[in-house]
Amino acid sequence: MLYSDKLLDYVENYLAQIDFPEEPELLYTPISYSMQGGGKRLRPVLLMLAYGLYADEYRAALPAAAAVEVFHNFTLLHDDIMDNALIRRGKPSVYAKWGKNVAILSGDAMLIEAYRLLGQVAPAHLPAVLEVFNRTAVEVCEGQQYDMDFEERQKVSVVEYMRMIELKTAVLLAGAVVIGAILGGASEEDCRRLRRFAIELGLAFQLQDDLLDSYGDERLGKAIGGDILEGKKTYLMITAMSHANEEQREVLRTTHLDATLTDAEKIARVKALYDLLEIPHLTEQQIAIRFERALAQLEGLEALPERVEELKQYATSLMGRKK
Amino acid sequence: MLYSDKLLDYVENYLAQIDFPEEPELLYTPISYSMQGGGKRLRPVLLMLAYGLYADEYRAALPAAAAVEVFHNFTLLHDDIMDNALIRRGKPSVYAKWGKNVAILSGDAMLIEAYRLLGQVAPAHLPAVLEVFNRTAVEVCEGQQYDMDFEERQKVSVVEYMRMIELKTAVLLAGAVVIGAILGGASEEDCRRLRRFAIELGLAFQLQDDLLDSYGDERLGKAIGGDILEGKKTYLMITAMSHANEEQREVLRTTHLDATLTDAEKIARVKALYDLLEIPHLTEQQIAIRFERALAQLEGLEALPERVEELKQYATSLMGRKK
Repeated sequence: MLYSDKLLDYVENYLAQIDFPEEPELLYTPISYSMQGGGKRLRPVLLMLAYGLYADEYRAALPAAAAVEVFHNFTLLHDDIMDNALIRRGKPSVYAKWGKNVAILSGDAMLIEAYRLLGQVAPAHLPAVLEVFNRTAVEVCEGQQYDMDFEERQKVSVVEYMRMIELKTAVLLAGAVVIGAILGGASEEDCRRLRRFAIELGLAFQLQDDLLDSYGDERLGKAIGGDILEGKKTYLMITAMSHANEEQREVLRTTHLDATLTDAEKIARVKALYDLLEIPHLTEQQIAIRFERALAQLEGLEALPERVEELKQYATSLMGRKK
Repeated sequence: MLYSDKLLDYVENYLAQIDFPEEPELLYTPISYSMQGGGKRLRPVLLMLAYGLYADEYRAALPAAAAVEVFHNFTLLHDDIMDNALIRRGKPSVYAKWGKNVAILSGDAMLIEAYRLLGQVAPAHLPAVLEVFNRTAVEVCEGQQYDMDFEERQKVSVVEYMRMIELKTAVLLAGAVVIGAILGGASEEDCRRLRRFAIELGLAFQLQDDLLDSYGDERLGKAIGGDILEGKKTYLMITAMSHANEEQREVLRTTHLDATLTDAEKIARVKALYDLLEIPHLTEQQIAIRFERALAQLEGLEALPERVEELKQYATSLMGRKK
């Protein structure tokens, strides 16, 4: 069994034994529902892997690992209201199932639950961990706000987009990793390196997500082209806009609104333009650069070498690559 | 100058110097807007008064005082979405001014900001303070959920109503007072007494709020009868329902829906029934009982006697009574 799979087991077991009150039902049932959603548990596993670089007594890291996972699920609950998203991990979102008010209030209770879990870390580490968590949490909110701002704007630069996904996605990976490192007893220098590792990994991860939405494998069960149909400003779209001539830009801007086209035709038209502009290649290049930068940060950590190797493997598997 | 007014000054000054980033504007502007709303700053002043029972260096209590005020304002932002409330303290609510998404996300950022402020307390007190705060915060959510549940129900008992307002209103007063006491170095026994003091005070305060909504002085600038027009299940309404005969109950249940009546007629009809059933008197009795129980808890505190007196005076002034 892979070390990261073992950690995933620990995390799942810890999450499963968190006991929510029965009442009021409309506050707590949606929390259990959203926490059972599964997913990769990427953030808590990263936290545990970072902890494992420095220490063995994995139990000490579980409450904080659970805290970042509960926090992540809180953001999904509230994002789904703001984005009017009815499906989450193949099931109705809390917002779709119970409505806006329940999703707001259950989300609030989850954010508080994340802090309750965080409060279980050793008192000696609590001030530092709380500070990292708070900074991370508010940056995730900033990222979500920029994301919504960008949807209202005509033009978004690649630099702005990268900053947005850094806030919305990468900083939470970084927060998880740094909290794990602090709990394990890492030096400040190692915390800084691990932070940069997780930021770059998070950017690579999000760009890959953007790429797979248009170029993924339908056999993996995910519908292709959702971003294109919504006219979303992804890395692909923003990069294409910056490389396109005026006529092509018009196609990129308007295709998703064209009522004379079927969905398949819209997707085909935009992807043909992406291909012409070599957007998939440019995106893969950017992913590779970010991923290499991430791995480079792991060199020179003052950590158990075999655990560094495990972390590297996990990061590699995330990117869907063979090592 | 009253001691409590001095504390209020400290709190206002501390709140005023909290510096929010400029960007993203739609995340942070609503936070400043809602924090400028003023109000009595009841919760932070209570925290400071409780701290002052045991210690003099008031500055040490300011971050936690600010945290409970920011938390309180966070709950207002989200409650206003759920209650579809367009006016808050005589101004457009954040929800009315910027819409649902901004109110959700700015509210989230405020909750996180409350924890950031809380993180400033002395490390020795942080675990205990965080625990009280977390428990309080989730109970406030429970109270809000019960409040919404009750609006959907035909029948709510007085006991259920009291439990709901304890959660929605009183526990936050209690949390503030207990956090102040912990920071000041109070014994566990004193913390328990102060908790009960604040719970009873909070109940008295909320019942008085219910009473004033129907029987307040219009000259104080607050419109009378809002709860009656909304058909809200207040202490007055629930008590009236439990004392009314079948015919009277029907009047209480349906008057606010009767399209043949003007607002003034609706209010007059319900209040006539309240008067007949002696509801104002029963409510005042209940307020007096709760308030006396609150004050009784202050006897026997191991605290500076003149500061106990200040706290008593402040509580008395809250209830709009001369001492």
